[in-house]
Amino acid sequence: MKLFESKYGYFTSDGKEYVITNPRTPRPWVNVISNGDYSIIASHTGSGYSWRGNAGQNRITRLYQDLIKDNWGKYVYIRDTESGKFWSAGWKPVMAEYQSYEVVHGIGYTVYRHKVDDIYSEMKVFVSIDAPIEFMYIIVRNDANKTRKLDLTTYFEWVLGNFPDEHREFHKLFFDPTFKNNTIFVKKYLGQFPDEKGRWNNTSWDHIAFHSVSLATKSFTCDKESFIGMYGDERNPIAMKLEKLDNKCDRFGDACSSLQVEITLNPGEEKKVVFTIGAAKIGEEDPNLLAEKYTNVEIAEQEFEKVRKFWMDLLERELVETPDDGLNIMTNYWAKYQAISGRIWAKSGYYQVSAGYGFRDQLQDSQIFFSLRPELAKKQILLHAEHQFQEGDVLHWWFTIRGGGPRTHCSDDLLWLPFIIQEYIKETMDYSILDEVVPYVDGGKGTIYEHCKKAIEKAFKRFSPRGLPLIGENDWNDGMNAVGTDWKGESIWLAHFMYLLLKEFIPLMELKGDSKFAAKCKDVLEVLRDSVNKYAWDGEWFIRATKDDGEKLGSKENEEGFIFLNAQTWAVISDITDEERKRKAMESVKKYLLKDFGALLLYPAYTKPRSDIGYITRYAPGLRENGGVYTHAATWAVWAFALMRDVEAMYKAYKGICPPYRSFDIDNYWAEPYVTCGNSDGPISPHYGRGGWTWYTGSAQWLHRVATHWILGIRPNYGYLDIDPVIPADWDGFTYKRFFGDTLYTVVVKNPNKVSNGVKEIVFDGQKVQRVPILSDGRSHTVEVTLG
Amino acid sequence: MKLFESKYGYFTSDGKEYVITNPRTPRPWVNVISNGDYSIIASHTGSGYSWRGNAGQNRITRLYQDLIKDNWGKYVYIRDTESGKFWSAGWKPVMAEYQSYEVVHGIGYTVYRHKVDDIYSEMKVFVSIDAPIEFMYIIVRNDANKTRKLDLTTYFEWVLGNFPDEHREFHKLFFDPTFKNNTIFVKKYLGQFPDEKGRWNNTSWDHIAFHSVSLATKSFTCDKESFIGMYGDERNPIAMKLEKLDNKCDRFGDACSSLQVEITLNPGEEKKVVFTIGAAKIGEEDPNLLAEKYTNVEIAEQEFEKVRKFWMDLLERELVETPDDGLNIMTNYWAKYQAISGRIWAKSGYYQVSAGYGFRDQLQDSQIFFSLRPELAKKQILLHAEHQFQEGDVLHWWFTIRGGGPRTHCSDDLLWLPFIIQEYIKETMDYSILDEVVPYVDGGKGTIYEHCKKAIEKAFKRFSPRGLPLIGENDWNDGMNAVGTDWKGESIWLAHFMYLLLKEFIPLMELKGDSKFAAKCKDVLEVLRDSVNKYAWDGEWFIRATKDDGEKLGSKENEEGFIFLNAQTWAVISDITDEERKRKAMESVKKYLLKDFGALLLYPAYTKPRSDIGYITRYAPGLRENGGVYTHAATWAVWAFALMRDVEAMYKAYKGICPPYRSFDIDNYWAEPYVTCGNSDGPISPHYGRGGWTWYTGSAQWLHRVATHWILGIRPNYGYLDIDPVIPADWDGFTYKRFFGDTLYTVVVKNPNKVSNGVKEIVFDGQKVQRVPILSDGRSHTVEVTLG
Repeated sequence: MKLFESKYGYFTSDGKEYVITNPRTPRPWVNVISNGDYSIIASHTGSGYSWRGNAGQNRITRLYQDLIKDNWGKYVYIRDTESGKFWSAGWKPVMAEYQSYEVVHGIGYTVYRHKVDDIYSEMKVFVSIDAPIEFMYIIVRNDANKTRKLDLTTYFEWVLGNFPDEHREFHKLFFDPTFKNNTIFVKKYLGQFPDEKGRWNNTSWDHIAFHSVSLATKSFTCDKESFIGMYGDERNPIAMKLEKLDNKCDRFGDACSSLQVEITLNPGEEKKVVFTIGAAKIGEEDPNLLAEKYTNVEIAEQEFEKVRKFWMDLLERELVETPDDGLNIMTNYWAKYQAISGRIWAKSGYYQVSAGYGFRDQLQDSQIFFSLRPELAKKQILLHAEHQFQEGDVLHWWFTIRGGGPRTHCSDDLLWLPFIIQEYIKETMDYSILDEVVPYVDGGKGTIYEHCKKAIEKAFKRFSPRGLPLIGENDWNDGMNAVGTDWKGESIWLAHFMYLLLKEFIPLMELKGDSKFAAKCKDVLEVLRDSVNKYAWDGEWFIRATKDDGEKLGSKENEEGFIFLNAQTWAVISDITDEERKRKAMESVKKYLLKDFGALLLYPAYTKPRSDIGYITRYAPGLRENGGVYTHAATWAVWAFALMRDVEAMYKAYKGICPPYRSFDIDNYWAEPYVTCGNSDGPISPHYGRGGWTWYTGSAQWLHRVATHWILGIRPNYGYLDIDPVIPADWDGFTYKRFFGDTLYTVVVKNPNKVSNGVKEIVFDGQKVQRVPILSDGRSHTVEVTLG
Repeated sequence: MKLFESKYGYFTSDGKEYVITNPRTPRPWVNVISNGDYSIIASHTGSGYSWRGNAGQNRITRLYQDLIKDNWGKYVYIRDTESGKFWSAGWKPVMAEYQSYEVVHGIGYTVYRHKVDDIYSEMKVFVSIDAPIEFMYIIVRNDANKTRKLDLTTYFEWVLGNFPDEHREFHKLFFDPTFKNNTIFVKKYLGQFPDEKGRWNNTSWDHIAFHSVSLATKSFTCDKESFIGMYGDERNPIAMKLEKLDNKCDRFGDACSSLQVEITLNPGEEKKVVFTIGAAKIGEEDPNLLAEKYTNVEIAEQEFEKVRKFWMDLLERELVETPDDGLNIMTNYWAKYQAISGRIWAKSGYYQVSAGYGFRDQLQDSQIFFSLRPELAKKQILLHAEHQFQEGDVLHWWFTIRGGGPRTHCSDDLLWLPFIIQEYIKETMDYSILDEVVPYVDGGKGTIYEHCKKAIEKAFKRFSPRGLPLIGENDWNDGMNAVGTDWKGESIWLAHFMYLLLKEFIPLMELKGDSKFAAKCKDVLEVLRDSVNKYAWDGEWFIRATKDDGEKLGSKENEEGFIFLNAQTWAVISDITDEERKRKAMESVKKYLLKDFGALLLYPAYTKPRSDIGYITRYAPGLRENGGVYTHAATWAVWAFALMRDVEAMYKAYKGICPPYRSFDIDNYWAEPYVTCGNSDGPISPHYGRGGWTWYTGSAQWLHRVATHWILGIRPNYGYLDIDPVIPADWDGFTYKRFFGDTLYTVVVKNPNKVSNGVKEIVFDGQKVQRVPILSDGRSHTVEVTLG
């Protein structure tokens, strides 16, 4: 059964694959494929660029970041050597007339199925689960009734490290390719890092890259001009007009790699070829052994099975089954996959080539592991703690290769450390994390509890005389970067966030015997609640911030940007105000912000740049943070509406940003329907609803979390599994299965009375209970929940 | 008459134009066109990218730096609206079959002559001499015998400021185009500089760009996708399949500009259309007025005449006429034009996109103005002096927009200030420059004499105990960046250079009454001479440097890099050693370094990266500084051989790097034969003789200078015109004409006895003289020189 079918494709019935049937999608629809160390981006039009460790710092093959040109630069050409006709395994670059074309983006792989001129080809692109190797596994079949002679020819450009394109003519001078055993090996003698004495341009790239093939090569080249031709292009390269490549391999050209192999196919016959690309760290890995071991049809097949098993073993530790296919697909597979593969592992997407981890960003993302493998969340959390200064503040982001990053005056980043840690403990009961000792980035070390306390204490130093936190260089909203740089402007969202954080963290302080600090924090709680309600209530909603000069932002006094989403949703989430104000605030959200495609970040959008606010006002009105739907924040609207028991608004806020549903207006949406986008245009944009910045957005994890925790309402809570669904009243119920360690819980929720919330009865392993304990006995447990 | 004709083109008989007759040149052959403020690069295949003030900091339209793809991204399409057939005014991007195609690169302009389908078009590309406007002046003629309906459509992408391509998806969000009066105006709301409080992403680009046309527009678009189409490309844009453009103009697309106009031509009829692109500084210039004034056929014609007159008035203040056409062409026009337009004004070339002035670089280049308009040299010199620190050292380079640059530990950059100043005074007798008061970059100010003294005194602090200057982070050779970072390694070239500098500068010290410092410098002179001859003589040549660990470089003890060019040529140029050693050193140059295409920088090339030397060893052997011909240094070999009276070697060293002569092996040379290249490959490269890095190289000024000063031997010298030619003995003589202010000198050198040097007689205005005085009486003077 095809789910969410549109003119471009559909989900398979199990939701694990998205099948593209028409390559002319409105924008490149890609797959970010990663094993945590080695990553590639594949488009539906062709195989994409690759990197190791970090896209922004260690690119292996070339990226052309230009959506409209959709140039992937890594191609396999198929040619009938008798007729001279050629096409490509992916649709691009040749874009030949085809008999059939279909691309399957799966969890950890992409498959291109192409039939041209009675030759069927299937190319599977994936990355070894534990080696720095990408595969192009190709099956070619002759569907004609005569014997066909073909050659297959790869082509792509190397980067080997990282350089901006404007220095291309310098950097291209340092490549050193060699060829042996059907493999091209390439070194680069100019690395991007200073040497031990701080001297630039005095190191080599610390990897050796290679490209290999499982058949004997007919010919090869390492020179771009040899392949493309001075006045050719990828669509019509000179190489396709010549019998074979020129076997050029020296330090004097423009680094590319191209391998050519020949195959003869009888009618009906099929053959398999494996091309690999890899990058071996010098001194640690042997490129010869890697190339030899992995460039093999059987190995590739085994590796592919390992990839599938790895991902399913990981993702299927938690599965939901609801009447909502979109929710099922995203929650079970794609949101998790996006958060892990795109955000935490690849750290990159097509719209943004990242060079590191954001302190807040991947901390939040790490929550995706809570229900899958919490030890991976812990690992990520500890890593972030290592990027805190002794003073309590943090590196806003850092490079994961060779370290380093900016110490900024962002006011919220540091607080996400205690926030995520209390969430982690709440879900896992792993209090031991508080006692883990990790270093500070500027020396010394401390327990995680001390790290958290330092973060909170640092934040306490940044308060206004009115008892509100200062916004500083920015808070959650990076684009409000001119509001409070003189440390006078206040952030109301940050007050809300801090209120929730303190409330949840105080019990941990008490647990650690830190009663003085707990008492202080209780005082601050009170101050925050009083100040927010006294100074930030604007009559119908909360203001968002005050500027250094005292002007309110997100107030009815403003002409533009008079209401902001986060100041309302977090008032509810944090429970900082009374029910009446919560209700009014969320009514205002419904009135001004909640639209068909999710909740807008603010309204009305700024139409002119305002240098007293920041770059949020520099975007076109309706675009991204400037009054568009910023998906990260829009997920929190789902959370807030769930807390308000406003199921209609909640479900509207959810479905509007749940990608599969955008299949229904796909030409308007533009973006991939299987992963979240960072933002979609607000109503003021002529492209209202257009999605952008897919894959590398922190919204995927939150989309997963609001579905499981706040719609389905299944929340691990200090040893118990709280169950409190807020679902459409017409649902018959749903099932939620997950492992805690090796213990399996199956929660079956029944809704015989067609209500949207309210738990009438819980039966745990046949016994009625008030709360469901989380056991770790390695057995299977069932929970039957009846609403009504 | 065609000069230096090759399969790709030729020089016109007056040498002022290079005509390309076959667009399939081995690499893009470009023209760097600048008015000092606004610049463009035009290829022979199409109009190129543009910028204002500084290529690296203020790009207006897009650059794709990829020689093999030769994508210029600024195109004019011509379409027959009845047949639908289309092509382009330049050959690219459509690359249609043509009836004729010819490109003329001239001094300040490029002309494309194209005939397709009986439609002849001529597009002239140039920049207003005093306004921030580039012109695409197009004449279209109907050579068919029926009436033709055509439309012309421009297309290009905006950049508006500077951003690396990898952040394209972010930066593209901040463009704001509007359309009125046949003109597209574009703002960008994200500038590249911090605001007054140091906040990034809080300013707008400080210009408004525009694109206009002299006819009423049929249609237009500001959206890349509207023009190209999601799966189109520049060669086959969707716009050419549609009757007209979609008039899209908003902040929500991908910024390009395209204007479409329609013309009908009777048989034999021709029409003229002017397209302009410009960038007006906000608050200082009015883009509306600029667009309106300049987008006009008559104005464009007047502006073009002004460009031609401007350049000829400037360049023809000095003209030579010798039996050597290559020397004539380069010396009279192209070397001057390259040095001024490419280096001093545009500050950019295709191979290198610069973001500023190099301290040493444009100081040397400024010598090109000595014989043309010395006040421009003075202006440039004073500008450089402002980038010196009070301590005497200098910014290695600096940004010309908003300032800033690196303070490095380069050991020679600071010394070029006094060196060029003494050359300036020597040629102009303008001693007043020494008394000009200019600021230091870190505060305070001083006379130019004081600036020079500080530079010398700073250099005096960097000596080894052996009395040799230390090399530091690098000297002339940037790529020797690991030799002496611990301040122990010595530079022999720098000793030579300093020796010459001090010798020439001491008289100026005495003139300023600074006798103590002069005395000290005389002592240093002696030390340098003694130390160089004692420690740096290697038996057959001078070594180049010692490393921090004491190892010699450029010594017979080395396996690779055992001889370096500069250590020999400057021993001669500086006169630091005796005649015997000079002779031996230059014999060694001939033995190891002087090749068909100029003198190699070192021999043998390094074959492996050596992190104890620096990135010079990271290039492929034979490439650039690693044993290739580095043209800047190769010009000094001409100088040194002239001093040695070794005319054969001198002329070989000159012709090998004189670009027109490379027309004879043009498929080997690859580069433009009308401008110098930065380097050509050494014999060890498979592309021996291949030129690279044209236009933006400091060699053009020196190629001019060695021709006039050391081959023709005409040297202004403190009020006298010294005349001391070293020419091929088979020359009958030559003529040299130049103005000093408004006084014209015509030097006619006769060589009746076929000698290569030695002046027998000088007749000045009919009187025999020993030396020729430089008068400034506003009259014409003749100098008749007889060799023999």
